[in-house]
Amino acid sequence: MQGFEQLSKAFLEQFQRAHFPEEPAALYGPATYFLGVGGKRIRPVMCLMGNQLFDEIRPDAWHLANAVELFHNFTLIHDDIMDKAPLRRGMQTVHVKYGEPTALLSGDVMLVFAYEYINRIGSSFLQKIIQVFNRAARMVCEGQQLDMVFEQEAQVSFGEYLRMIELKTSVLLAASLQMGAIVGGAGEGNQRHLYEFGKNLGLAFQVQDDYLDAFGDPAKFGKKVGGDILANKKTFLLIRALEHAGPVDGAEIRELLSQQAPDKVERMLTLFKRAGVDQWACELKERFAASALQHLDDIAVLSSRKGPLRELSQFMLHRDH
Amino acid sequence: MQGFEQLSKAFLEQFQRAHFPEEPAALYGPATYFLGVGGKRIRPVMCLMGNQLFDEIRPDAWHLANAVELFHNFTLIHDDIMDKAPLRRGMQTVHVKYGEPTALLSGDVMLVFAYEYINRIGSSFLQKIIQVFNRAARMVCEGQQLDMVFEQEAQVSFGEYLRMIELKTSVLLAASLQMGAIVGGAGEGNQRHLYEFGKNLGLAFQVQDDYLDAFGDPAKFGKKVGGDILANKKTFLLIRALEHAGPVDGAEIRELLSQQAPDKVERMLTLFKRAGVDQWACELKERFAASALQHLDDIAVLSSRKGPLRELSQFMLHRDH
Repeated sequence: MQGFEQLSKAFLEQFQRAHFPEEPAALYGPATYFLGVGGKRIRPVMCLMGNQLFDEIRPDAWHLANAVELFHNFTLIHDDIMDKAPLRRGMQTVHVKYGEPTALLSGDVMLVFAYEYINRIGSSFLQKIIQVFNRAARMVCEGQQLDMVFEQEAQVSFGEYLRMIELKTSVLLAASLQMGAIVGGAGEGNQRHLYEFGKNLGLAFQVQDDYLDAFGDPAKFGKKVGGDILANKKTFLLIRALEHAGPVDGAEIRELLSQQAPDKVERMLTLFKRAGVDQWACELKERFAASALQHLDDIAVLSSRKGPLRELSQFMLHRDH
Repeated sequence: MQGFEQLSKAFLEQFQRAHFPEEPAALYGPATYFLGVGGKRIRPVMCLMGNQLFDEIRPDAWHLANAVELFHNFTLIHDDIMDKAPLRRGMQTVHVKYGEPTALLSGDVMLVFAYEYINRIGSSFLQKIIQVFNRAARMVCEGQQLDMVFEQEAQVSFGEYLRMIELKTSVLLAASLQMGAIVGGAGEGNQRHLYEFGKNLGLAFQVQDDYLDAFGDPAKFGKKVGGDILANKKTFLLIRALEHAGPVDGAEIRELLSQQAPDKVERMLTLFKRAGVDQWACELKERFAASALQHLDDIAVLSSRKGPLRELSQFMLHRDH
């Protein structure tokens, strides 16, 4: 059994390879550039861990790990175009560096290469794997579209927002684990519990992310607190506050959203606290985390095999930075 | 055996179905809208014909036909973004009607649904089919990128241009036929000849398309002659003329490219003719067509089975409009 850090290291090393042909360089150069921007590579490691929960890690799991990471990077390149984001991890986004048409196309071809990795796996699992992968891929697109729709709407319900986050971010984490489990030989029931573990872990992580952006310790958080508030970004916190603040506070929140007062962050945080949003978010995160761990418990393998996945949830959720 | 027109009609009817879920409508509505813009649906029919050359048409061929048509429409949606095209077949392009982010994303999800159709085929052929499909998909992206690169270059060689056209348009025609042949049970040698038939047919068609845009009969061509010349589009004709005109005519061509004189089309056509480009293009088209038909002859099935593919090449090549 390899732990989370060991697997992360192994994946990072393995991923340092040429994923694309050299020519045409105008297409594959930008794709390779973007992979060099880096990332936490959590999804592919989840793929490996999903396999390892049930069996020794097989070559198929490595192909799937590469596929999942290419897919994720394809979505990032296209999201950056849609969001007109100039930077990612402090580096120029592909469309800024190479122009939108090239960014669009190198994202497209990266998706094709994700399927190319998938197609390397043993054919007995191929159909089932593509089914799981396609479902997740489709849902990620749906989530991104809902995110864009919601940005234009004055108010979004908690239920709608939760569904969007689930589609946009949690489903791919869940599917990464499930695909690893499939090539590890897991049965349907275990696959389902592992999927739910990943989904709930993703939701807990997103709630935490929203919380830390508003209430995190700036020294530990590593970026300025209040970025989401300044950007009027819809978050779990804002959506809860709009649903649960009294009429006076609600009006003030809406007024704050329509302007960029110098004390906007401070005032919004006060309003959030008055609506009990900070406490609520901590509880919500704990609920998702508890649900994730319950599903992990329910997987019918020796508890000792679950160590790396417990480490993963520690890594993702018990950070205060 | 069904003829080309019969198969076209059958495909058109079958394709009138819901290919996507209803929700989120903001994502799938635009995708469905674009399919309604229509098209000749030649690629999916080639898929069916590739199957029929070797056997009765199987359900797998229909899934692949749908996959190929969705893939083609995905490329069109994204190409229209890259080319900033306002219209296609007289209807608004997706990015004009719904905005670029939505166009980008509905293209993405259409590609995922193409793979979803592929995944419905019998698993014994799945790996091989994905291999052929992915290779074509990748090459179409490469061709589109080269097209964009070449648009920025002062001069492109005939060899480079030919390769770009092969990637951007011919390879998908060839792969559509080959995929049909695979599910029809064809052997490797027959697959290869059918692929080459499709590739050369595509090249002949493109040469003809370039020729008709310049020298076609406007009454029969259905659109204004000289559109490519006015747009300074690199075509087989322009590339040949730049390579083979004498120094004086070459300088005049380059000068014409740098301006929009009222008699630009007329003058360019005179220069094309002086370089013998019209005659050359007709011969080039015939060479590709002859090569296509030679490969069709070389396929080891009864000649009578090849009727529909001969009809297809008639349909594609013996038009003067």
